[in-house]
Amino acid sequence: MNSVHRSRIFLGFLLLLTLAWTVPAHSADALPSWNEGATKQSIVSFVERVTTQGGKDYVAPSERIAVFDNDGTLWSEQPLYFQLFFTFERIRALAPQHPEWQEKPAVKALLAGDMKTVMTSSERDLFELVVIAHAGNTTEEFNKIVSDWVASSRHPKSKRPFTEMVFQPMLELLSFLRANGFKIYICSGGDLDFMRAFAERVYGVPPEQVIGSTFKYSLGSATDPLAIVIQPKLDVINDNDMKVVSIHRVIGRRPIFTFGNSDGDHAMLRWTAAGSGARFMGLVHHTDGEREVAYDRESKIGKLDKALDEAIAKGWTVADMKRDWRDVFPPEKK
Amino acid sequence: MNSVHRSRIFLGFLLLLTLAWTVPAHSADALPSWNEGATKQSIVSFVERVTTQGGKDYVAPSERIAVFDNDGTLWSEQPLYFQLFFTFERIRALAPQHPEWQEKPAVKALLAGDMKTVMTSSERDLFELVVIAHAGNTTEEFNKIVSDWVASSRHPKSKRPFTEMVFQPMLELLSFLRANGFKIYICSGGDLDFMRAFAERVYGVPPEQVIGSTFKYSLGSATDPLAIVIQPKLDVINDNDMKVVSIHRVIGRRPIFTFGNSDGDHAMLRWTAAGSGARFMGLVHHTDGEREVAYDRESKIGKLDKALDEAIAKGWTVADMKRDWRDVFPPEKK
Repeated sequence: MNSVHRSRIFLGFLLLLTLAWTVPAHSADALPSWNEGATKQSIVSFVERVTTQGGKDYVAPSERIAVFDNDGTLWSEQPLYFQLFFTFERIRALAPQHPEWQEKPAVKALLAGDMKTVMTSSERDLFELVVIAHAGNTTEEFNKIVSDWVASSRHPKSKRPFTEMVFQPMLELLSFLRANGFKIYICSGGDLDFMRAFAERVYGVPPEQVIGSTFKYSLGSATDPLAIVIQPKLDVINDNDMKVVSIHRVIGRRPIFTFGNSDGDHAMLRWTAAGSGARFMGLVHHTDGEREVAYDRESKIGKLDKALDEAIAKGWTVADMKRDWRDVFPPEKK
Repeated sequence: MNSVHRSRIFLGFLLLLTLAWTVPAHSADALPSWNEGATKQSIVSFVERVTTQGGKDYVAPSERIAVFDNDGTLWSEQPLYFQLFFTFERIRALAPQHPEWQEKPAVKALLAGDMKTVMTSSERDLFELVVIAHAGNTTEEFNKIVSDWVASSRHPKSKRPFTEMVFQPMLELLSFLRANGFKIYICSGGDLDFMRAFAERVYGVPPEQVIGSTFKYSLGSATDPLAIVIQPKLDVINDNDMKVVSIHRVIGRRPIFTFGNSDGDHAMLRWTAAGSGARFMGLVHHTDGEREVAYDRESKIGKLDKALDEAIAKGWTVADMKRDWRDVFPPEKK
């Protein structure tokens, strides 16, 4: 092979690469777990519109902010928010060192396996359980505690790791958006440090793109003057209106794409809708009692009522799990 | 010209492009306003070490987090924090509509031009001025108010726009770090919404990479149920230990590079230093009474005492303005 020939092969290779880069990533095949239909089409066509240079709906990459709720939107939230399973397991593990907890009714019921009493405890007592399971640790310790829990615990019904109870169609959607220049944030009522312990590995969302509820923090533990310690006092409950405020505080831009599943996401969906230019508002509607759980207006967890009414009235995208998702969960890892 | 010839020219062009991409960006010429010497060398060699693939100090791009204080580090802070000039000007502009302010001693003194009384007011009275100038606006209104102020106001001594009172060597440093894959955050005691109004244009730092003090926010104004309204109540005073906490909340990673100028930056500098792997801690030392202002241990604004001691003891980088900076401010715009 002479050098001109080699050059031409090399040139061909470079051109091929260039072509590969410029093929639009918004091909429908990027969402194989979504059934063909209006829902999938609404996603694909929105992404096409905002990424088409010169089109009237084109949005610069820096403004392609997509925000996702976590519980019930990216992963399952039934029969209980997964953070509560973590909370219960953590308290059971720590209880032998804390005989004084026997005086707390909710803890006592939990340790006795009386979940009915636990779940009908006052909000204040339930919240105390969450505080016990989270506070007092440094953020680095807590990250390891959650990572260990993720590796060892199983969902009570499916017996799969909680991080496999994520929705395959939503994982594909995250990848599809990323491939089209979107920056993806999670904005959830879940605890910030809890979610960060797995968000990058499971969703590809790095710590600086996770927004959650937070406890107060202080600087300095008994052994490390520079450790960040989680205090037993809530700072932000990242739900409803507070999701909008948190997005402002952390991102400082109004998202153009927001996906939730409950009335707790209603404010950020409405705020997204009220911006100028092309907008995407999406809801996961849990309609599949066979493959997951069917619930909406009457559910205590993930109640979806007013946001569903507005979605229907305004033509927002409603992902009907039973109708729109070919698969719900990713294939089991061998 | 035959097609083989054209192909070879094209190939040559592509190779040239490839070469241009792989030339290390950490050339000393990226910092022309820094005099040659140990300070400049410490910056360049740190960046070389953490970006050299296969080197023992290599840091992956996602962990190349650089944090800068703003007042006194990226721009001047004398004779007063620039946000106070904004505050005073805003109150003067609004006062005619607020005769009731005449009952507030600090406001009354300000309107009478009695700056000595203003500056010796109680902290509480001074803080009330700041609240008056910031709260009650929606975040969008406030952004416009600050943008207008930036465009129309002038520094009392230099008569230049405040956004030209930025330090040219630091602007070069920001560009140099960005070219080497760093993600740059501002973490300052200044108000979040105030800084965001100019940070992207002046520093190239987008809104999601600005961390500052914040007022409480609420959702819903008289005319817009989805507007974010700045409340007359401080939420976070982003100074000292709180800078570390805020970095955790927003970024969730420990920076490897932190630059400040006062004891208010000491905690985040120490926290940066305490991480594993290569670390860069830098201080701007205001030593140039001729070109800027000379102050450190005794100054009321930007007091630099304990952090300077530790910097000297630990060999952190101290940018001595008089010795290390060829230029202080950017050339005036015609």
